Amino acid sequence: MRLRNKPWAVKLVNDHPESVLQNPDPDKKIDWAERFGNDHPIEIEVGSGKGHFITTLAEMHPDKNYVALELQTTAAGIILRTKLEKGLDNLQILRGDAADINCFFPENSTNVIYLNFSDPWPKTRHEKRRLTYKSFLAKYQQVLTKDGHIEFKTDNSGLFAYSVQSMNNYGMFFDFVSVDLHHEKPEIVEKNIETEYEHKFAAKGNPIYALHVHFETK
Amino acid sequence: MRLRNKPWAVKLVNDHPESVLQNPDPDKKIDWAERFGNDHPIEIEVGSGKGHFITTLAEMHPDKNYVALELQTTAAGIILRTKLEKGLDNLQILRGDAADINCFFPENSTNVIYLNFSDPWPKTRHEKRRLTYKSFLAKYQQVLTKDGHIEFKTDNSGLFAYSVQSMNNYGMFFDFVSVDLHHEKPEIVEKNIETEYEHKFAAKGNPIYALHVHFETK
Repeated sequence: MRLRNKPWAVKLVNDHPESVLQNPDPDKKIDWAERFGNDHPIEIEVGSGKGHFITTLAEMHPDKNYVALELQTTAAGIILRTKLEKGLDNLQILRGDAADINCFFPENSTNVIYLNFSDPWPKTRHEKRRLTYKSFLAKYQQVLTKDGHIEFKTDNSGLFAYSVQSMNNYGMFFDFVSVDLHHEKPEIVEKNIETEYEHKFAAKGNPIYALHVHFETK
Repeated sequence: MRLRNKPWAVKLVNDHPESVLQNPDPDKKIDWAERFGNDHPIEIEVGSGKGHFITTLAEMHPDKNYVALELQTTAAGIILRTKLEKGLDNLQILRGDAADINCFFPENSTNVIYLNFSDPWPKTRHEKRRLTYKSFLAKYQQVLTKDGHIEFKTDNSGLFAYSVQSMNNYGMFFDFVSVDLHHEKPEIVEKNIETEYEHKFAAKGNPIYALHVHFETK
């Protein structure tokens, strides 16, 4: 979702190059261990929006490193504000294009990729832009470790059905499937961290679809 | 769904052994070409209920053979009544257990298996009874031809999610996925033949889930 431009956010982002990497050169390697100050395992959220999901995760797991991949400066600024307020040293913000994810991260570097409420791109001619199109899957496969996996959530029935088929046809292995995540068994609902969008959408009683998948072989 | 017992149905079924095969010995081969009077390709619906789906298909495609696999005598009688009224020579009714499907049909004999609104068996301890449990999938794989496929529909979100995972984990290949079949593109909705149960359920505005799958290799 496009956020209204906020001048304070632009300034905040520009003032914090140690926390926000802006449009890095895809041909140059990023030294994540240096940016985080350690080599803990990395988890990436592709399209973090205002960042409630990734900042909550980062706060819960100080022993893991998190990257919010987000194109919009205003969104990056909102995530950064939360990071600074909460002192989340294990969260980095990357302003860049998801299509370059395999340039931004080395092979076998990432434990989990989160795809939350991505743009459904419903028109067939935009299929290649969907974050679960096979060319994206190939990049996630490069970046993920052998034991890594993807966690995907959406409220969009078309994108969910498309993604189930695309990931299956790619040869991925399904570990968890739900077509009504908020009405699953209590132990599953309890562990779910909502995004801002998810919270609003589910409050209207609409279903949330979820899929956890891994690549069977590397 | 359990139907109330109808004495007329029991009598009708017993009077028509040429149309209804009752609890055949799983150890004895059934000569389908003899029963149909030809060797046209076979399609099976597992659990036909009152038979609106399979009798509609049989009427539309006189060049294909259809088998309604159904345990209940009353349901078999209702299907048989329709068969006789419409003169559907290409429809046979098999009163038997789906778990014996690989005994009732030879290897590589069947083009399509339809699983419509099967019992969801929601309790984990009943998982093995679900018609998409791996032991059933193994039997369908035996029975289907190399180019054969399965068409699965349900209104039950739990059974759908379970089946997506079970079929994916078995290595099946997804050809079509929908989590809202009745609101798909017009050309897809138009081709859908509703079961009695589906008609009632969808009329309440609830989603119908669908999956078309095939075994990648034999």
